[in-house]
Amino acid sequence: MADKGPIVTLITDFGTTDGYAGVVKGVLLSLAANLMIVDITHDVEPWNIRAAAWIAANTYKYFPAGTVHLAVVDPGVGTARRPIAVVSDAGTFVGPDNGIFTAAAASEKALAAYELTEKEFWLKPLSATFHARDIFAPVAARLATGTPAHRLGTRIDAETLVKLPSPQIVCGQDWVEGEIVHVDRFGNLISNIPVSATAAGATCLVNGQRIGALTSTYGSTSGGQPAVVPGSHGFVEIGVTEGSATSALHAGVGSAVRMESG
Amino acid sequence: MADKGPIVTLITDFGTTDGYAGVVKGVLLSLAANLMIVDITHDVEPWNIRAAAWIAANTYKYFPAGTVHLAVVDPGVGTARRPIAVVSDAGTFVGPDNGIFTAAAASEKALAAYELTEKEFWLKPLSATFHARDIFAPVAARLATGTPAHRLGTRIDAETLVKLPSPQIVCGQDWVEGEIVHVDRFGNLISNIPVSATAAGATCLVNGQRIGALTSTYGSTSGGQPAVVPGSHGFVEIGVTEGSATSALHAGVGSAVRMESG
Amino acid sequence: MADKGPIVTLITDFGTTDGYAGVVKGVLLSLAANLMIVDITHDVEPWNIRAAAWIAANTYKYFPAGTVHLAVVDPGVGTARRPIAVVSDAGTFVGPDNGIFTAAAASEKALAAYELTEKEFWLKPLSATFHARDIFAPVAARLATGTPAHRLGTRIDAETLVKLPSPQIVCGQDWVEGEIVHVDRFGNLISNIPVSATAAGATCLVNGQRIGALTSTYGSTSGGQPAVVPGSHGFVEIGVTEGSATSALHAGVGSAVRMESG
Repeated sequence: MADKGPIVTLITDFGTTDGYAGVVKGVLLSLAANLMIVDITHDVEPWNIRAAAWIAANTYKYFPAGTVHLAVVDPGVGTARRPIAVVSDAGTFVGPDNGIFTAAAASEKALAAYELTEKEFWLKPLSATFHARDIFAPVAARLATGTPAHRLGTRIDAETLVKLPSPQIVCGQDWVEGEIVHVDRFGNLISNIPVSATAAGATCLVNGQRIGALTSTYGSTSGGQPAVVPGSHGFVEIGVTEGSATSALHAGVGSAVRMESG
Repeated sequence: MADKGPIVTLITDFGTTDGYAGVVKGVLLSLAANLMIVDITHDVEPWNIRAAAWIAANTYKYFPAGTVHLAVVDPGVGTARRPIAVVSDAGTFVGPDNGIFTAAAASEKALAAYELTEKEFWLKPLSATFHARDIFAPVAARLATGTPAHRLGTRIDAETLVKLPSPQIVCGQDWVEGEIVHVDRFGNLISNIPVSATAAGATCLVNGQRIGALTSTYGSTSGGQPAVVPGSHGFVEIGVTEGSATSALHAGVGSAVRMESG
Repeated sequence: MADKGPIVTLITDFGTTDGYAGVVKGVLLSLAANLMIVDITHDVEPWNIRAAAWIAANTYKYFPAGTVHLAVVDPGVGTARRPIAVVSDAGTFVGPDNGIFTAAAASEKALAAYELTEKEFWLKPLSATFHARDIFAPVAARLATGTPAHRLGTRIDAETLVKLPSPQIVCGQDWVEGEIVHVDRFGNLISNIPVSATAAGATCLVNGQRIGALTSTYGSTSGGQPAVVPGSHGFVEIGVTEGSATSALHAGVGSAVRMESG
């Protein structure tokens, strides 16, 4: 077996029709030729920080701990928002300080956050519109190949990192209320209610509409009927076998979800 | 040259907007850091096993023999369909037993099929909705790095593998009839009639409409006219230079194709 | 660190729903198992050589000098257009001689161009419709792993390479006129007017409509107003913060751009 190279994952809203993600890869490989670059996605909806944060939070934990996660959805590029690196036992995150790492950072202990300030590591001239190329990729390549974060920036209080508003769940004696936080490619509605917070056999309502009881798998309901299942990331999810729950229920991100038992 | 790492290819309908394919890559690299992961596609139409089977059948043979092909289009995830690995001299296939390997398996000799049964190799807890992450990726990583298939599952009769209905061709004295089995991005209509089964200069009809004689290349007909050519996978194909044959001929998957000679 | 493998980048209009790019990757890896394959894009608009040329010109320079850039948008596949390799100090380009390397080649010195003529390096049988698989991938793998270009083809005069018509800028005493040459995923309008050819504070007009003065970043104008900024590739660019300039201004590729100072 060959030695393993360091891994850099990419989450962007750059799309694939302009070569922007390709430029980032070129910068990475020019600085560290043995990097393993892993495309998570370049198809985040433009400027949708929330969607990118959801993807980052649900993917990083499956990678080896030394992995660098480069995530850039950056509507404030060129303005005062800080470029940051966040180092944890579970991985290192590089990107703009706009909330893209909210969920990832919230779930990890022992975080050290840095504002990227050491300009000698950046590409020159620094553009106003493409910091993924000029700042984040050079920094990610250095972090992946062993440059310590404190050489690339200034330690900041992790509490000062921008956080996205994060929808909370509310629990009663025999119910839990939350909301839909992501709709996936298949039209599945993914809530923020942990499966562990619901009782076995609890009934699900979406926007007040009774859907059915928590069951084990999409295939367990008959054609066209929505199924309420334990989603793969541990949250209650509503799907339709070979169909779209978002269409069938006219529900989407922000829709109210309630689980009732008894 | 560096040592070559083992190769795992990916064919899924996961899309690229939810991070699901990224999770699979993370699981693979966590178990085998030197893997070379090759994206074939994550853009199979959701639940379209037939399309995925067509892509699998037409790509695996170009990869080195030791390659592991992970193909997951899995509407029955969480139900009783078997998780399988199929080992052949030309490559190893990992995914659900739902016909996705029909064409690939049919064209290879010396196949050994296994139902994946050894749960100690899977991720825990096993979800009901994401077996690509929990079963198929861990198994693919082990197969790629040398774990023998018989340690990961139980040998089954390859004859029992689920097979998709496969459209047949019918041959007369001076004609062959088949159908369109794939429409590609360019709108080219790809049939199941082998070029080798047609006579030189044979005339093509699609849905009874006379298209023209088998020629050598798209560019050999003038603007907007459909050309009948030997497709790159060895089957008769109808295309329009810088245009769409599927639109021009109102034809698609399942349309009747007839080649007449003399 | 592991040894670095040679890099091959891919720019195609193959899309990701048919496996064609996967086949190209398989051919590359069968010939050179340690290649690092980098997807730049497979989503060039079908047959849009101009768009592919723009992407190629703006990405290659960020990769290490030894990188092989395989770019195939090839409406003339199977006709008389030449298969070529172009070798420069900044990288090696492989693809059809249809202008796809116009901008890349124009900006590099010390170019040696070759018509690919040595058929023993190609896949057999040679198809009429898939030269990326049969000619370009095998040649790219050989070039990436050290086969000299003169063994793969015949030296040709670089002046004879097909060039796309390239929109010129016209300069007056206190103005420059050019046009929009690319619209990116975000709807940003990218011109061919170098930022270095404009005066500080110059005013931008698109199709005669006054947009505003050259400023530093998208975020510097208020909501919905187009901003004129120095684009990341060094050209004047018009964008709208979290919006689409192409929609807001009803402008696109070919629209007239004028920068006026004083």
